[in-house]
Amino acid sequence: MKQLFLSRTLTIISIVALLAVTAHAQQPEITLLEQAQQLFKPLPQDMATTEFPITPMRVALGRKLFFDARLSLDGTVSCASCHRPALFGTDALPKSIGVEHRLNAHNAPTVLNAALQFKSHWIGDRENVEDQAMKSLTGYASFGNPDTETVIKKIKALGYADNFAQSFPEQKDPIKPENWGIAIGAYERTLVTPSPFDDFLRGNVNALTPQAQRGVNTFIETGCASCHSGIGVGGALFQKFGLVEDYWKAIGSQTLDEGRYSVTKNPNDKYVFKVPSLRNVAKTPPYFHDGSVATLPQAVIVMARVQLGKTLTEQQVADLVAFLNSLTGKLPEDFITELGLPPQALPATTP
Amino acid sequence: MKQLFLSRTLTIISIVALLAVTAHAQQPEITLLEQAQQLFKPLPQDMATTEFPITPMRVALGRKLFFDARLSLDGTVSCASCHRPALFGTDALPKSIGVEHRLNAHNAPTVLNAALQFKSHWIGDRENVEDQAMKSLTGYASFGNPDTETVIKKIKALGYADNFAQSFPEQKDPIKPENWGIAIGAYERTLVTPSPFDDFLRGNVNALTPQAQRGVNTFIETGCASCHSGIGVGGALFQKFGLVEDYWKAIGSQTLDEGRYSVTKNPNDKYVFKVPSLRNVAKTPPYFHDGSVATLPQAVIVMARVQLGKTLTEQQVADLVAFLNSLTGKLPEDFITELGLPPQALPATTP
Repeated sequence: MKQLFLSRTLTIISIVALLAVTAHAQQPEITLLEQAQQLFKPLPQDMATTEFPITPMRVALGRKLFFDARLSLDGTVSCASCHRPALFGTDALPKSIGVEHRLNAHNAPTVLNAALQFKSHWIGDRENVEDQAMKSLTGYASFGNPDTETVIKKIKALGYADNFAQSFPEQKDPIKPENWGIAIGAYERTLVTPSPFDDFLRGNVNALTPQAQRGVNTFIETGCASCHSGIGVGGALFQKFGLVEDYWKAIGSQTLDEGRYSVTKNPNDKYVFKVPSLRNVAKTPPYFHDGSVATLPQAVIVMARVQLGKTLTEQQVADLVAFLNSLTGKLPEDFITELGLPPQALPATTP
Repeated sequence: MKQLFLSRTLTIISIVALLAVTAHAQQPEITLLEQAQQLFKPLPQDMATTEFPITPMRVALGRKLFFDARLSLDGTVSCASCHRPALFGTDALPKSIGVEHRLNAHNAPTVLNAALQFKSHWIGDRENVEDQAMKSLTGYASFGNPDTETVIKKIKALGYADNFAQSFPEQKDPIKPENWGIAIGAYERTLVTPSPFDDFLRGNVNALTPQAQRGVNTFIETGCASCHSGIGVGGALFQKFGLVEDYWKAIGSQTLDEGRYSVTKNPNDKYVFKVPSLRNVAKTPPYFHDGSVATLPQAVIVMARVQLGKTLTEQQVADLVAFLNSLTGKLPEDFITELGLPPQALPATTP
């Protein structure tokens, strides 16, 4: 764990060093593409890891479970309720609403490319997409089930026993929340959205309009890329929101969210949040951890001001938005197609 | 209106007469297929009518609107919340749950083939699918919007203005709840699910297994077809639930629902409900207006007892269920595929 932090710190230092070099030194021979290739990386085919390998069986099961609202307390909430396919894996709400109209603490981030991130949730209180999925089953403001026994009974009653057995053939008793999380995770690890910016990073300079290219340059020169870098264009570290100004005044928050401090109780973590990935950002309003900002230009202006102390020109904002639009990817076919849940109903009770 | 009732009454009389003939007279020359063809009809290509013609523009718009939860009070409920594609257009709940966890009065019927029915809702308080959709926008336990002005503002804010203009080119001010209903209705009028039983009715006797054919025979001879007939195998008339026994004792209802009486206040309408279409019934548990019965065999047994005073044999139940399974149709491709809502979020407010 310490090693991970050390390596992360070194990465940040080297990025900052690189930015210093690219922004200030006279190196006309470095093209924008080369600069971008040093800071960002194109998407892989999928997001399987050694710890979380994916199999076709698990992906197929995870996909069904992702869309099945019957697992929730009152049968109304599935993963897809807050991560709607047609809304690029979000719900377009400031903060998501779970079972019994319970309000979530934060805005729902997209599930697209989410497995790339170093932690899940805005305050990093979930380790990965598997952990996030598993804990949502009994999360108060998500699926709302009282305990894991209830969940296990529901999974069996709905006719998923065979699917679990086939997906975890080495296990004697595979129906458990951990495996629910692993199956959903396997599915989510297939949800990558290759974008024009990925084509650009692979060397096709014409994949970006001249304005979007200017936006890449502004993104690097202004300092945005010091946090929003890597494959996810973000999603790789924590950072204080409001380095220069109080964020809640800048975005008009209705409540004061102390961020990661609520997890660690370490005063250094006050107002610290995960730096979100900017992939598909143009398609996933509203913005920030509490959804306080409705439009992308407004979000860009606020970020430059409160994080970097900079006032952007209208042209810079337009260029940055053009670049951010190039991060909009193609929705995976088996995300926008909903298919074949087992047809069983749970034993009838009037809620 | 009177004429309609008269013609309906005549239809019922002629069906009853036909049943009397087929059940009791010696007419060995009439085959099961011929009998069935006199009582039922195969599905049309779509369910457009002179009053509600469909156009590709309206269907496309209606499809988007069907899946857009942002139109509801809190952004959590769309048509597809209670009419989930993968659950054959239902939600597998006893009674549906709308915005703010408000409980609906009745079980959600499927939207598949729904436009065939002579009225909408279990108690017939909606004239057709267009009327049902339109009124759901401000329905307390569905979308929950306070008034139509709010709805109109939301439709505009979400970027649908052009779609409405293209779908209703003859109108100057096309964004209104009536047109929302007409667009959703146009989409729903395409949602037909041709089944093996339709193949059978068109003359392919082998489309049904021998057991399902015995089920058709039992369905006619027992008297089920006296209410469940026509294209929808039901959905064409009102009938008292519990002609022989009190329904609420038979199905274990938790509340006493007086049915259509609550609409008309006519004592003759006490415990009267719309006879539901049985198309896709095997895929749409739980059963009856309050979802009190979880399985199809149980529903079949109850119906024979409380409506016809008959106790079915195990074999008869199995045969009837085999027939009802043959009413399961193919899901329309553009129902199970969810695509392309406008990406705008509504102005951010914390709910």
